[in-house]
Amino acid sequence: MNTYLKRQKNVSSLLAREDISLLVLCDREGMRNPSIRYLTGHPSDSVLFIFADGRTLLLPWDINLAQIKATATEIKPYNDYGRTLSQAVAKVVEEEKLPVGSRVELPSELPYPEFMRLSAGSAYQFICRDGGLSAMVEDMRQIKDTDELATLRKAFAITDSIMDKIEETVRTGQCTETDIALLIDREARLAGAEGTGFETLAASMGRSYNIHAFPAYTGALMPADGLSIIDFGVKYDGYTSDVTTTITRNLNPEQERMVQVIEGVVHVAEKLLKPGTLTTELSGAVNDYLEKNGYVMPHNLGHGIGLYIHEKPFLRAKVDPVKLENGMVFTIEPGVYDPELGGVRLENDYLITDNGYEKLTNSRIIRL
Amino acid sequence: MNTYLKRQKNVSSLLAREDISLLVLCDREGMRNPSIRYLTGHPSDSVLFIFADGRTLLLPWDINLAQIKATATEIKPYNDYGRTLSQAVAKVVEEEKLPVGSRVELPSELPYPEFMRLSAGSAYQFICRDGGLSAMVEDMRQIKDTDELATLRKAFAITDSIMDKIEETVRTGQCTETDIALLIDREARLAGAEGTGFETLAASMGRSYNIHAFPAYTGALMPADGLSIIDFGVKYDGYTSDVTTTITRNLNPEQERMVQVIEGVVHVAEKLLKPGTLTTELSGAVNDYLEKNGYVMPHNLGHGIGLYIHEKPFLRAKVDPVKLENGMVFTIEPGVYDPELGGVRLENDYLITDNGYEKLTNSRIIRL
Repeated sequence: MNTYLKRQKNVSSLLAREDISLLVLCDREGMRNPSIRYLTGHPSDSVLFIFADGRTLLLPWDINLAQIKATATEIKPYNDYGRTLSQAVAKVVEEEKLPVGSRVELPSELPYPEFMRLSAGSAYQFICRDGGLSAMVEDMRQIKDTDELATLRKAFAITDSIMDKIEETVRTGQCTETDIALLIDREARLAGAEGTGFETLAASMGRSYNIHAFPAYTGALMPADGLSIIDFGVKYDGYTSDVTTTITRNLNPEQERMVQVIEGVVHVAEKLLKPGTLTTELSGAVNDYLEKNGYVMPHNLGHGIGLYIHEKPFLRAKVDPVKLENGMVFTIEPGVYDPELGGVRLENDYLITDNGYEKLTNSRIIRL
Repeated sequence: MNTYLKRQKNVSSLLAREDISLLVLCDREGMRNPSIRYLTGHPSDSVLFIFADGRTLLLPWDINLAQIKATATEIKPYNDYGRTLSQAVAKVVEEEKLPVGSRVELPSELPYPEFMRLSAGSAYQFICRDGGLSAMVEDMRQIKDTDELATLRKAFAITDSIMDKIEETVRTGQCTETDIALLIDREARLAGAEGTGFETLAASMGRSYNIHAFPAYTGALMPADGLSIIDFGVKYDGYTSDVTTTITRNLNPEQERMVQVIEGVVHVAEKLLKPGTLTTELSGAVNDYLEKNGYVMPHNLGHGIGLYIHEKPFLRAKVDPVKLENGMVFTIEPGVYDPELGGVRLENDYLITDNGYEKLTNSRIIRL
């Protein structure tokens, strides 16, 4: 059976269990939801209806694209359904003759006023909740299946080859942040990737103290004395990698110590990468190690990657404990930042396996 | 008075009028809101509180960036407020000792479950509505002031110079879609822009029949016989341009006719560009002209541009009539598409003036 149909079937069996007649998912500007791509293969704006009996109806904005990319029981133009979520929902429940009082679950990110408008005076019971069916689909996406891992490995291979080219470039001579960022984009596209997974960050010494430099890259020269950060991902068939390197040159002792501490953090984290470890335990151990060394990390330790750049599991020290499981793919990206000394971040992607982990990318501190 | 303070004051006077004690705006992943940049200058993730007495409190994710960029009565790290919108709101209303029953307006895009959690059992009256204060700020943003026009003109100047370079490149020889896209990004950044306003689309003949080609650009060769589309924007200090050119070579008569009709549409539209014209009237006239010529446009005629790539006014034929006003800046971007013949789109940016319009960009059909 087609992977997408299998996934759709898994979701429709959840509907039965939760006594929901219809699940509506929506991917639109301001409310992106990669679960539609996960379930149908359609990569852009659309509304997806999943019925408890296993049928699916996809309403794509771009019907030509959907006809090439999407798997669903039926695919019809969004244009025929009024081009708004509420009109589409109203028309579909009518066409389907859903019994009065049926439970219809809407996207959990639906704005409050839109939910109120949609449900006002309706004969159906509309549900919009955290931890509902959309969240359950996100939980499924957290454990990568064989197809997903195969796609991710293509993204990782391109990522590693780009990392080597970056190293070669900065060892050879001077260029700009923009040169590096465009090298990444060009190599990714020409290798068949859809593009970068997010806006590349290339921050030379003067700007590397920012977690997310703004603007993301400029005409500033690289490499420079001190600490420079490059953070990028490659998106292949929807799935993105996410790595960061720090390029160092002529460090002073305090900068050198920052680098060593970050390399130390990676060892602390890797020791805990196995099924059963809690994300809070992992992140807590890293924060303790940093604290002992006199540093504080101003962001979380890492996050899941897949069809979205920030997805479950989230590696947070104090909230949302999740047990690591075989098949989870996420970043480990310790970083410390100082307005005077600059920033260091080292980020790689990891897969949890039966009895430990596999390191999926080969980013490293590049010492000039 | 600082432009940002002036804008904040305008909003706080709306609070008084609407009997709202506190307006909360939020800019975060999945819920972007450029109104915070409009009101404070802060360009990224944050929560903004505006009080009826004119004070403002900004809680940025990146405090270093805010200290350089933002104007607000107080600026404090989001970290000190629990890093979630609901914790931040709860803490601020407590610190402020807002009287029980005070009306607090939340972002209109707030997800339903989050609104319910936030307001459950609260002593305050939380409001979340379409057409409320956030929408009123969007209405303000629709009319560009002198500062905004000056910034936009910088984006337009870079855009025009890039358009000339594109023409030079495609007249000189063959390259790839990716070469063109990266040329745009490089030239924009090196000219001091923050980057492109959105992901550039470069679709050679084989892919130009898509409104939004997917992926946005690839290794496909350009120029090619037939119709190729390039759609890009330049973002300068937050404000973006948005233009499209079609590159033509060795057209057959049907393709030539598509190009001529699109050039004709521009004249039809320009005649109506003046204060008082309804957006529906403008879009309707264009659609009538296309229909008379046997074409259908599968998207809207245009949209406002500014701190966001798609903002008010929206030029739609059948819904949301808005009267054009002096100071509005928007795109006019007629397009027709055919899976066999390819696509043609021509897009420029316009300002409505006292008695007509000013064409702000110089995109054109590039005939090879």
